[in-house]
Amino acid sequence: MSPKIITLTTDFGLKDPYIAEMKAAILSICPNANIVDITHQVDKFKVPTGAFILASAAPFFPKDTIHVAVVDPGVGTQRRPIILETPRGFFVGPDNGLLVLAAKAQGIKQARVIAHRRFMLPHVSATFHGRDVFAPAAAHLANGAALEEFGPEITDFAQPSFVQIKRTSEKLLGEVLHVDDFGNIITNIRAADLPDFKGAPIQVTLKSHTLPQTVLSRTYGNAEPEAHVVLIGSHGYLEVALNQGSAAAKFGVKAGDAVAVSRA
Amino acid sequence: MSPKIITLTTDFGLKDPYIAEMKAAILSICPNANIVDITHQVDKFKVPTGAFILASAAPFFPKDTIHVAVVDPGVGTQRRPIILETPRGFFVGPDNGLLVLAAKAQGIKQARVIAHRRFMLPHVSATFHGRDVFAPAAAHLANGAALEEFGPEITDFAQPSFVQIKRTSEKLLGEVLHVDDFGNIITNIRAADLPDFKGAPIQVTLKSHTLPQTVLSRTYGNAEPEAHVVLIGSHGYLEVALNQGSAAAKFGVKAGDAVAVSRA
Amino acid sequence: MSPKIITLTTDFGLKDPYIAEMKAAILSICPNANIVDITHQVDKFKVPTGAFILASAAPFFPKDTIHVAVVDPGVGTQRRPIILETPRGFFVGPDNGLLVLAAKAQGIKQARVIAHRRFMLPHVSATFHGRDVFAPAAAHLANGAALEEFGPEITDFAQPSFVQIKRTSEKLLGEVLHVDDFGNIITNIRAADLPDFKGAPIQVTLKSHTLPQTVLSRTYGNAEPEAHVVLIGSHGYLEVALNQGSAAAKFGVKAGDAVAVSRA
Repeated sequence: MSPKIITLTTDFGLKDPYIAEMKAAILSICPNANIVDITHQVDKFKVPTGAFILASAAPFFPKDTIHVAVVDPGVGTQRRPIILETPRGFFVGPDNGLLVLAAKAQGIKQARVIAHRRFMLPHVSATFHGRDVFAPAAAHLANGAALEEFGPEITDFAQPSFVQIKRTSEKLLGEVLHVDDFGNIITNIRAADLPDFKGAPIQVTLKSHTLPQTVLSRTYGNAEPEAHVVLIGSHGYLEVALNQGSAAAKFGVKAGDAVAVSRA
Repeated sequence: MSPKIITLTTDFGLKDPYIAEMKAAILSICPNANIVDITHQVDKFKVPTGAFILASAAPFFPKDTIHVAVVDPGVGTQRRPIILETPRGFFVGPDNGLLVLAAKAQGIKQARVIAHRRFMLPHVSATFHGRDVFAPAAAHLANGAALEEFGPEITDFAQPSFVQIKRTSEKLLGEVLHVDDFGNIITNIRAADLPDFKGAPIQVTLKSHTLPQTVLSRTYGNAEPEAHVVLIGSHGYLEVALNQGSAAAKFGVKAGDAVAVSRA
Repeated sequence: MSPKIITLTTDFGLKDPYIAEMKAAILSICPNANIVDITHQVDKFKVPTGAFILASAAPFFPKDTIHVAVVDPGVGTQRRPIILETPRGFFVGPDNGLLVLAAKAQGIKQARVIAHRRFMLPHVSATFHGRDVFAPAAAHLANGAALEEFGPEITDFAQPSFVQIKRTSEKLLGEVLHVDDFGNIITNIRAADLPDFKGAPIQVTLKSHTLPQTVLSRTYGNAEPEAHVVLIGSHGYLEVALNQGSAAAKFGVKAGDAVAVSRA
């Protein structure tokens, strides 16, 4: 049997011993775990960015992968440590929305709080749940512990605005999830949210800026230089890009800004 | 049997091929080694910082882990390559104090020089003992080579000031090991050095600056904003912190500065 | 049997999900692959630098290692995805010269285009062949797929100037491959290209600047401070260095500049 894969996504950086301590906690419980770093350079405390990166990478991992993510401005407060189960694996981390974008794309079967101390390190610090709670929980899942044993089921896990699309009879309303290094504007609207737009003229509004109508492009290169392109990016989200240049700079858009999409 | 874990802690950075060459050397000798990076971004040539990071992470690894650390300003000089054995594993690296903080916390059973060429790569360069000496030695240990075969036992390994606490009848005398990203002042005085201070008023002097007496806190949040806190940090070392702000900046303290602790 | 080693060398950086997606693609096809990062911080789009780093690290890996490298300014154009086979393993990446320096040092037995879709991910994006083409090809090689099945053999793979030494009756003509952090000038001329120079006076010309004649040194320290040294560096390439100082700054040299070597 292949070793279980446990991925790590954090904002801890690479200078400090923190990531190694999480790996050590995992390997102490599940010595054969195959630990894969997604990134440890999420902008500090930026939950939507971490959510986007996790949601981008997760679909490529094999079934039964266990994803641990820690971008956790609320560590030490009452925010709950949770596990989300999907048909393709588990997501372990803080109940602040970080996990939900990736897990929803797979379909959330069940959510549970990590409550029982036997799934944590013997000493749980107030400041480092990545090492003391989340990494051990993932390792116990990898060892085959039943999700039901970890703690009570919940249905009220955090559903932050960046994972919720609104629909009116005329429009899809979402928000900007991430502006990448090229200045491409990545929204939280997925291809599956756009069944009626194939080939049809589409109108995108960024904040109060309504763009000229267009059709969905296949690639960045399909437009005149400097003209904007609306496309489904390589991770399945609706993007607004310029063929040559930064759409985010041109339209003055940043993560969290409102997006509306309608048929023209 | 689980694969042997070999950790790496260096100041080599992540741009160059050096880390991969160390891993290649290990896997050429011990193909099933499970190599875990602690960090490769120790400030260049800063042995105390490397020692602190290694000592922070090492306790979380399982028994029989082999730790390789290379912060080695003296490579190519007469400084010896050594192995320290503890009840929980091995530490491999230069004899410049880098290994001693972590190894002492576990208890040093034996120290040996790496002397025999058959435990090194066939060609040993003058400038890269990480690849040519330390990584191969770790891989041979992982393969079960007896420590006695590597070279002569020594007792005079380097014991730099940052691993030695002095005791007088009234005081513990140590030094600042590390100032972390938050400005917390981490000293080389461990919880075990402070048996008599639980709940008792304590007086800390940083360089010539004597702080108001206080008791050991449990967390950073136990003080008035701007008031200093003395606590045992998450890695077991005495820290001086501010609830909100940089203690290092307020008190003008940096790594290497003297610390004294006494009952008030 | 030991798990197959697959190495990764890219210019993707560590912030984004790209590296993890490549690893996920590999592990989905070959769950027991042992993936080793060489670096992901090649200067963006700098093929010669990537080639040098790959060529530096590759010799230290065991036989049958599979190296994937992606510094790929031409992704999405007609440049071909290729596999080079050597007696010591495989090199997988774009046909832009990135692989050739490392592979030539081992001896290229065969070159093939990756043509058959069954060795790629089901959806091949226009922009991310690292994940969709190169990583899956490496994983299929690790699983034992025969090189012949991937696509047609080619002999006209790119041979960029930085992997080709010219010989006249009097001179070896090469170029500067890399200027390292110390300012050492690393050329594409290897020790094996210099059979006649052991102990003999040697004359090096950098661009139009002819240096005073010298003999090959063993180390950087063999010269007067500020005098230049010509030596075979730790990765087997002819270097020009200063004992204390930056040779690249002194001689105004950068990657790509012409180098000539002759007997004095």
